[in-house]
Amino acid sequence: MRELTILKIGGNVIDDPKLLKLVLDSFSSWTEYKILVHGGGKIADILIKKLGIEPVMHEGRRVTDEQTLEIVTMVYAGWINKNIVCDLQFRNCNALGLTGVDGNIIPAVKRPVKEIDFGFVGDIDPFRINAQNIISLLDNLFVPILAPVTHDQKGQLLNTNADTIASSLAIALSRTYKIRLIYCFEKNGILLDPNDELSVINQITEISFQNYKSMGIIHSGMIPKLENAFLALKAGVSEIKICGPADFNSENRIEGTSMIL
Amino acid sequence: MRELTILKIGGNVIDDPKLLKLVLDSFSSWTEYKILVHGGGKIADILIKKLGIEPVMHEGRRVTDEQTLEIVTMVYAGWINKNIVCDLQFRNCNALGLTGVDGNIIPAVKRPVKEIDFGFVGDIDPFRINAQNIISLLDNLFVPILAPVTHDQKGQLLNTNADTIASSLAIALSRTYKIRLIYCFEKNGILLDPNDELSVINQITEISFQNYKSMGIIHSGMIPKLENAFLALKAGVSEIKICGPADFNSENRIEGTSMIL
Repeated sequence: MRELTILKIGGNVIDDPKLLKLVLDSFSSWTEYKILVHGGGKIADILIKKLGIEPVMHEGRRVTDEQTLEIVTMVYAGWINKNIVCDLQFRNCNALGLTGVDGNIIPAVKRPVKEIDFGFVGDIDPFRINAQNIISLLDNLFVPILAPVTHDQKGQLLNTNADTIASSLAIALSRTYKIRLIYCFEKNGILLDPNDELSVINQITEISFQNYKSMGIIHSGMIPKLENAFLALKAGVSEIKICGPADFNSENRIEGTSMIL
Repeated sequence: MRELTILKIGGNVIDDPKLLKLVLDSFSSWTEYKILVHGGGKIADILIKKLGIEPVMHEGRRVTDEQTLEIVTMVYAGWINKNIVCDLQFRNCNALGLTGVDGNIIPAVKRPVKEIDFGFVGDIDPFRINAQNIISLLDNLFVPILAPVTHDQKGQLLNTNADTIASSLAIALSRTYKIRLIYCFEKNGILLDPNDELSVINQITEISFQNYKSMGIIHSGMIPKLENAFLALKAGVSEIKICGPADFNSENRIEGTSMIL
């Protein structure tokens, strides 16, 4: 089975040119099949405010009205995606920038309105991902760079959580490849003490996850990220790491926090 | 030799939902290999003005400073490109939205500063186009949808004329495919009388082009478009049409103006 690494980089890495360079230098040197999934960063919020719109968040997730959808599509799929592709091509990495709409790679469903109307937000299902189109891109030696935008297959674009895209892709492709899924954010891993970068938890099991959650060490946006990660492990993903840009070096040895069942 | 149609749609078609629908309905029904190249439209100018920047044009071409580059990349590669891809996927056309940066398809050179500094504008050369990457996408049954952004291969994005991208792609791919190149704009073709949509010139040769130019019937932005078209014909492109959305119908017979040597 061929190896495939799926690297997800978060907003705080994208916003910091030094961190981003570190990650892209490393990513471009990897010789296995690879996919990069990126989130948003502050640029969308800056543009939203410049245009006089007030960003609305609910439990760390963006409420996406029509204007906000236009802006996140422009920023994620336009500016951030093409800059990353441009930087990777400069590093001789054959990057191809895409969204979940392109090649219908990630069909989604507009999130049903319950207590909160999230607006144009897409929920996705790993088993509906169009794996064949990604596989044919990988087999033709393209390196897909995915922006977190999907569609409902009826002509509507949808804003979609990048963590979920990364874990869903990992699940969808785990029948074809031996998958390593890496979540790279601004910390060195999951920290016992958020103020101490040396307090990285080396391994998290489902049981220790429950403990850390009840102790409040793992909270807010990290909870769905880790829940998705455990789902991915159970569905056949080989290895999952949560780490920081400092872990990226030419030896391709990623430290940080390992998720294990 | 397989047939490939390259359709370029202009800004006024993109700005009008009815015209765009007409064109995409027809394009999605074509069974030969196909590529769509789109220009910008008014959305970039609207956003540029909203953000307090004054658009600067020189002989119909945009002067692109850093902020303008950011906006055109967001609008062309983000909003317009992904909306077209989304609309085509809805029509069961396996669209894949790209720029010239993706897969390093269209390397460019920043335009040298002469009397005018066009800023971050890329000049391209048909013989430097990375045809193999486009061919492998076509052979995997993807339909490339190209936004007019390229790069200098050193990490700099560049704004690039969409007409030139279309004719350069046509030349680069003419060794591999029998190419039909269609420029679709808001008129029914090249008109003898700009106020009479029925006055379409059916055929333009190089000689009649010179005559129409000296008579002022063909002027401004149409001149480089046609000059590029003649270059493409000489370089081996089989057929070139300049037409309007009204020409698009299910029979795939495009009227408008034919360019002939």
